[in-house]
Amino acid sequence: MDLYGKDFIVSQEWDLEELYELLDLAAKMKRDRYSSRWTRILAHQTFLMFFYNPSVRTRMSFEAAATELGGHAQFMTPSAGRFKTDKQAGETIEDAAQVMARYVCGIGIRILEDKVPHYGAGNEMLREYARWSNVPIINMADDRFHPCQGMADVMGWAEWFGEGPGRPDYGNLKGKNFLLTWGSGSLARSWCSVQEALLVASRLGMNVTVARPDGYDLDPEVHEWTRQNCGENGATFSVINDPETGYDGAHIVYSRNWVTADAYQDGMLQKQAEIERAMAHTGWTATVERMARTDNAIFTHPMPVDRGNEVTDEVASGPRSAVYDIAENRLHVQKAVMALTMGNL
Amino acid sequence: MDLYGKDFIVSQEWDLEELYELLDLAAKMKRDRYSSRWTRILAHQTFLMFFYNPSVRTRMSFEAAATELGGHAQFMTPSAGRFKTDKQAGETIEDAAQVMARYVCGIGIRILEDKVPHYGAGNEMLREYARWSNVPIINMADDRFHPCQGMADVMGWAEWFGEGPGRPDYGNLKGKNFLLTWGSGSLARSWCSVQEALLVASRLGMNVTVARPDGYDLDPEVHEWTRQNCGENGATFSVINDPETGYDGAHIVYSRNWVTADAYQDGMLQKQAEIERAMAHTGWTATVERMARTDNAIFTHPMPVDRGNEVTDEVASGPRSAVYDIAENRLHVQKAVMALTMGNL
Amino acid sequence: MDLYGKDFIVSQEWDLEELYELLDLAAKMKRDRYSSRWTRILAHQTFLMFFYNPSVRTRMSFEAAATELGGHAQFMTPSAGRFKTDKQAGETIEDAAQVMARYVCGIGIRILEDKVPHYGAGNEMLREYARWSNVPIINMADDRFHPCQGMADVMGWAEWFGEGPGRPDYGNLKGKNFLLTWGSGSLARSWCSVQEALLVASRLGMNVTVARPDGYDLDPEVHEWTRQNCGENGATFSVINDPETGYDGAHIVYSRNWVTADAYQDGMLQKQAEIERAMAHTGWTATVERMARTDNAIFTHPMPVDRGNEVTDEVASGPRSAVYDIAENRLHVQKAVMALTMGNL
Repeated sequence: MDLYGKDFIVSQEWDLEELYELLDLAAKMKRDRYSSRWTRILAHQTFLMFFYNPSVRTRMSFEAAATELGGHAQFMTPSAGRFKTDKQAGETIEDAAQVMARYVCGIGIRILEDKVPHYGAGNEMLREYARWSNVPIINMADDRFHPCQGMADVMGWAEWFGEGPGRPDYGNLKGKNFLLTWGSGSLARSWCSVQEALLVASRLGMNVTVARPDGYDLDPEVHEWTRQNCGENGATFSVINDPETGYDGAHIVYSRNWVTADAYQDGMLQKQAEIERAMAHTGWTATVERMARTDNAIFTHPMPVDRGNEVTDEVASGPRSAVYDIAENRLHVQKAVMALTMGNL
Repeated sequence: MDLYGKDFIVSQEWDLEELYELLDLAAKMKRDRYSSRWTRILAHQTFLMFFYNPSVRTRMSFEAAATELGGHAQFMTPSAGRFKTDKQAGETIEDAAQVMARYVCGIGIRILEDKVPHYGAGNEMLREYARWSNVPIINMADDRFHPCQGMADVMGWAEWFGEGPGRPDYGNLKGKNFLLTWGSGSLARSWCSVQEALLVASRLGMNVTVARPDGYDLDPEVHEWTRQNCGENGATFSVINDPETGYDGAHIVYSRNWVTADAYQDGMLQKQAEIERAMAHTGWTATVERMARTDNAIFTHPMPVDRGNEVTDEVASGPRSAVYDIAENRLHVQKAVMALTMGNL
Repeated sequence: MDLYGKDFIVSQEWDLEELYELLDLAAKMKRDRYSSRWTRILAHQTFLMFFYNPSVRTRMSFEAAATELGGHAQFMTPSAGRFKTDKQAGETIEDAAQVMARYVCGIGIRILEDKVPHYGAGNEMLREYARWSNVPIINMADDRFHPCQGMADVMGWAEWFGEGPGRPDYGNLKGKNFLLTWGSGSLARSWCSVQEALLVASRLGMNVTVARPDGYDLDPEVHEWTRQNCGENGATFSVINDPETGYDGAHIVYSRNWVTADAYQDGMLQKQAEIERAMAHTGWTATVERMARTDNAIFTHPMPVDRGNEVTDEVASGPRSAVYDIAENRLHVQKAVMALTMGNL
């Protein structure tokens, strides 16, 4: 298996064996974080982080990942340059990507729904960079997918259902019940993390339930892939519209706010309208009472957590919260992605 | 003595022996700046610089410090994320600090008076980060204290009263006369540097004089600690309200503008009002004439210098100006702080 | 030859042998990019990039250059601090430069025409930094010159007229015909890149033609130096005002937009007026038809390319376009500049 030069845009486009290769390396890197086995892999090389949208966690974890591999992550935003659009003269992605690829060993891009005129346009832009760049494009979250988050999620779940930090047991996730539930709140959040979670949970053989208010369906193609993944694993996939029953017998609870499919109007994300729409659905919160209905479920979330809305403090800071472990895993899976696709392992 | 994991929020909270340990290491690091003794201490590790307020010198010196220890300093501002406040949903310090601590070996924070609703709130926020982080919190200047500046100051003074750069003599500072004088100008400056200077000067046995216009008293607790430090060292502490007599017999002159204790109104720093208030006190300037009254004093200032107001060009660029040496010492003391608290020396 | 400590502000101020020393090292570094011969040259040292104007390519290439030499490039903008001007209190360049020089091994500065009150003021500011800093000042593009771009240009030309990437033949450039032609478009571009190109092309013995609409003359001193350089090499220098005939027999075509000498009014660059003025001169575009008049010329441009105005897609993406190779060469020449002036080679 040779992953050198491969883009990482959505987990669904990598073979299962490729994902396991990545996850295995991430676990080894977590067990022995600063070992000289890893600290020369990208020695003196540059990874470019290109942020159309800012981020604390994504920047911190990618920048630390590059440093721990012996390299350096450069921070860049499009505001530093002038890009060609329908309305202004500037540089094309064809030119920008080909030049970037001369300087760096890989390019991470983050572009979310508020920076593009319609759903999917962010993901399309990543693929345009991938077309012109001959170094790997790593998705640091676009408007559809967030593969590094998905890998960190599943690594964290497998650690909690395995032998602890750095000792995940992926086999043990098969047949477990995964609840993804919409969460209340005013953050009008992206689909990328929850969609990637559906894909990885179903890919690894979990029974998947999505609970959301009517009108909050996600991308039909993601639903279709999830259904297909579940089918191949003999697992179930269901969508429900009440905030309670999904908890019954769940092993993993993922509660998070997201916008509706009608969020775009006139080529712009209507964030305020989405906030108002969400306000009609209070009480979609992961509480201790609801968690008590589960089969001793862990609580998972990609952070930042909207405490009091998506989840109560008691659950988010409680003994079954996997959120910090999963945040940490961003670092380890990203080191593994970079090592495999750029480091020529 | 083991300083590993210790926060550095104000010099007053470290034992005198701990401060000397830090200062001794800083001098060794200055003598032999790029020695392989130091360049592996933080190899492949990340130090986070979190800037609520921007800064040139603090960023440059911390980032160079991490590089010279073999590590990397990440630059971050809160604008990259969304933090919870009374008015908006967002991430808590509880969550942010616990995640940051998973990625990095230490966290530096800078937050000044214009970013907080009342005096002391910046320092409280640092302590909230320290509560949740299990890696050291280093104060990169808050609204009360600036311990790295204080250490750089005292190292510089001891070099000038010792055998030169990298050869400080701290014993020789005992019994010397230290003048901190308010300076004219429109910069409405923070208390943090001058307060830290009072603490370190008194801690190391100097006689301390504060000269300021009436109405320009600093934090009573800092005055109390200074008085206490002086008492323990058999040194004197006095506060005067004229711009001249403090120079008599001084060995070290520190001239700098600062705001009044009434600077906050309605939960906001009233910078314009403070500027107007300061304008009534022209002529509080360190001049050659005033320096002539001293016992061949050195001029000290944490920079940036407000030339023409706090001090004349003749003094600031003169042969007894220690300002560049002290600015350089920021690098060395910060390397020592990081090495001791994060590098497990 | 010892270039240690030398500023690099314009190629014209370096001896020809010094430029060849730089270009030779750049070619060696390109042939063997991550060799351990280079990766320790600036080990643990810091290069400061000070951006009055933002830039993607310049930042990326300098930051990668420092990383590949084992060091670290710090990113800084003046907005992080407060600089003294006629209108506000703040820090002087005297103070800023002397402090910076204590932390870093070299300082790169970028300041373009829109940040200064008159033509040449940006270059003057670089020289003021150079006056006070005792580490090298590297011009990362000012309002007059762009020496790193000029070196990357000439290296690329010599590769295309030599034996390919990393195998330039500078002797083969002598007597070749170099066309610099003004380009249409609304970008109101700086003089720095094209002026530096005139200087290096003439320095290396090419016959130089400048084609531009009347009113678009460049800096008379640059014209004078170019004429002088050509004279010393027995080469010709001519200025024409039609967009066609310059292509006849050309070996290298450089098409780029620039502003007029009247761009400043009332101490400010009048960008909108320049755009309107440029709109009267459509059709100054490097097309396939025009390129057919040349002696199989290569197309050169410092990027970002304004496709459709300065040059057509067919030419910019065509088989004789040197633009990506030249962009890559920024990295290599900058590594060589840093190694020679800061690395004590």
